[in-house]
Formats: sequence, structure tokens, C-alpha cells
Amino acid sequence: MMEKEVMDKRHLRSIKTRQKLLEAAKEVFLEEGFQKATISQMIKKAEVGYGTAYVHFEGKEDILIVLMEDVMGKFYEIAEISFYPKSKEEAENIIHKQAYSFLKMAETERRMLQIFEQAIGISSAVSEKWKSIREKFIQRISKDISYAQENGLARKELNHELVARGWFFTNEMYLWDIVRNERQESVEEIAKTITAVYTRGLYL
Amino acid sequence: MMEKEVMDKRHLRSIKTRQKLLEAAKEVFLEEGFQKATISQMIKKAEVGYGTAYVHFEGKEDILIVLMEDVMGKFYEIAEISFYPKSKEEAENIIHKQAYSFLKMAETERRMLQIFEQAIGISSAVSEKWKSIREKFIQRISKDISYAQENGLARKELNHELVARGWFFTNEMYLWDIVRNERQESVEEIAKTITAVYTRGLYL
Repeated sequence: MMEKEVMDKRHLRSIKTRQKLLEAAKEVFLEEGFQKATISQMIKKAEVGYGTAYVHFEGKEDILIVLMEDVMGKFYEIAEISFYPKSKEEAENIIHKQAYSFLKMAETERRMLQIFEQAIGISSAVSEKWKSIREKFIQRISKDISYAQENGLARKELNHELVARGWFFTNEMYLWDIVRNERQESVEEIAKTITAVYTRGLYL
Repeated sequence: MMEKEVMDKRHLRSIKTRQKLLEAAKEVFLEEGFQKATISQMIKKAEVGYGTAYVHFEGKEDILIVLMEDVMGKFYEIAEISFYPKSKEEAENIIHKQAYSFLKMAETERRMLQIFEQAIGISSAVSEKWKSIREKFIQRISKDISYAQENGLARKELNHELVARGWFFTNEMYLWDIVRNERQESVEEIAKTITAVYTRGLYL
């Protein structure tokens, strides 16, 4: 009983330390950019011990990957919106909502996504992580297309994985465009336009 | 008369030197990769003088950008295939041919495109050049969509530039996938699939 309480307290402290480090890391990344940021700055800002910090993370890449999972987790929830459309119109509504929320988050999380983009270009660990996030999205979209094909809503003759990949590419590249402030058009118009072409191209 | 001949000879020699340098540079890039390649290696391989070499190029980025223009010029010829379709079917045929040739060149020029990808990730001059090549393609596609819209073949309610951008993104990302040997599907199947979704989505 006594021992368990000690363990719980330790575990709780450990979770708090990790959380403090992640928050400090986020601030340092945003202030310094990925390349200049150092783990020492993060440890100092989080006010935790060096040894303790390294129990949680091996280096800044490691920390960034966790921050990436956090942000992309929110994006992924969008892709997970339940997809059992009964008609072409219903499918189009859901897909439009997904594309819009995905691209809108590029605006909301712009600054962190800018850091991710820098890191993807420099670190192969981060770049691999991004690729695995991308594959997760593509597999999810692929499943949705299969569902629509099996239910007579979408064109059966198309390779669903290739279609899913092409659709995700369009969304991803627009995401980076928006992150870099390179688009004048509103997120609403972009989402509407790409969804219109995609759903009419795929659905019956 | 005499003077003109001297000038012509000089000019000819200058063109040959430039050509020798470009060929040597290509070999060095392919052997060493972008990061490791040095302009000294290129000058040595081309057997030209140092001073002469620097008359033509300021550095290896500069040389790579010219090589990029050469390769992408071939790609761009594809986009320039005359586009005056009289029907949806004709448009689909032309667009399929364009997508296929674009992606097929990723196979033919794979090794040089691998060098370009490395360089885009490292050098901001090369990355800017890539962006300007991309914009040229998008403007060209955008023009084709306008033509189809004006001639009652494509959906007028869609913003042609946003559609063009989305379509190019799909093609570009597949290009890099093929360059990295990351696709099992044939270029033929990829081109067929993405064209089928795109043309049905856009054309009436």
C-alpha cells in the first residue's frame, strides 16, 4: 500500500516533468526555429534537472516528434470522422468538412507547422515521422474510398489507394502553401474547389 | 571582317567550355551527390582553367540550376502540347498523355531528379528555382482549364487556378514518389487513375 503510493507519486511527478519539458520545448522552438533551438535552452526554461530531462527525451528531434504527434493527432481526428455515407451528396459533405478542417488547422497551428517544415527538411528522423503520418492518413482515406466503392457510391474501376494518395497530396501541398502564407484565396474557397473536383471525379 | 572572325571563334570556344563544364558537373553530381560535389572536381574533370570556369558559373548551385532548366525544359515541352480539345474525350486523351509523359520522365531522369531533390532540401537558390518551375507549370495548366471553361467543356463555377494547382500537386508528389522508387504501381496505372478522377471531376 505504502509502496504503491510512492510509485504513484513518482509516476505523477514524471508525467509533470515530461509535460513541463514539452511546453518549454514548444516555446523554444517557436522563439529560435528548429535549427537554432537547443535542448539546454529547453531544460533551463522547464526548470528541470539535466539528468531527469534526458530520461524523457534523447534530443530535440525526439521532442519535436512528440509535439508533431500531438498536433497531427488533432488533424487525424478529422480524418476519423465517421464515414458511412448513404449518398453521393452525404459523402461530399463529409469530405468537404474534412478538407476544410484540415486546411483550417494549417492556419490555427501555422507557427508550429512552420517549425515542422523546417525540421522535415533538416532531420531524417523527423522526415520519416512525417512520412508515417502521411501514410496513416492515406490508409484511412483509402478505407473510406473502398467503403464507398463497395456500397455502389464510387467508381469501382479505380485503384482506391492511388486515388487516396493523389487526394492527400493535393491537401498536403495546400496545407504547406497556407502554412507559408502563400495563398491569397480563403481556406473555404480552396476546400470547396478541390472537394468539388475530387468528389465528382470519384463518386457516381 | 577579321575582327568578327576572332569574335566568332572566341564565342564558339566559350560555348564549348560552358558545355564541357555542364557535362562534367552532371557526372560529378551523379557520383558524389549534391552536398559532397565540389566545383573544383567539376573544373578538373572538364579540363578547363579555374578563371575560365568562374566566368561561366559562380558556384555549384548555379550549375545545378542550369542542369535543372535543361531537364525541366523537356518536362515543360509536355505541358506545352497544343491544347485545343473539341470534346471531353479529346481533352482526357491529351491530359492523360501529359500526365503519363511527365511521370515517365521521372523514371528516365530518375538519377538527376534525385540530385535535384537533395539540392532543393539544402539550397534556397535551388528551392526558389524549383518553385518558379512549378509556377510555370501551374500557369500553363490554368490557361488550359480556362480554355476548356470558355469553350463549354469544363465546369465554369470552379476557380481555374486553384484547380490547376491541386492537379499539379498530385502530379508532382507522384513524381517524387517515383523518383524515390516508392511506388510499386506502374507509371501507366498511376497516370490513368489520377487522370480519370481529375478529368471527370472538371469536365462536363
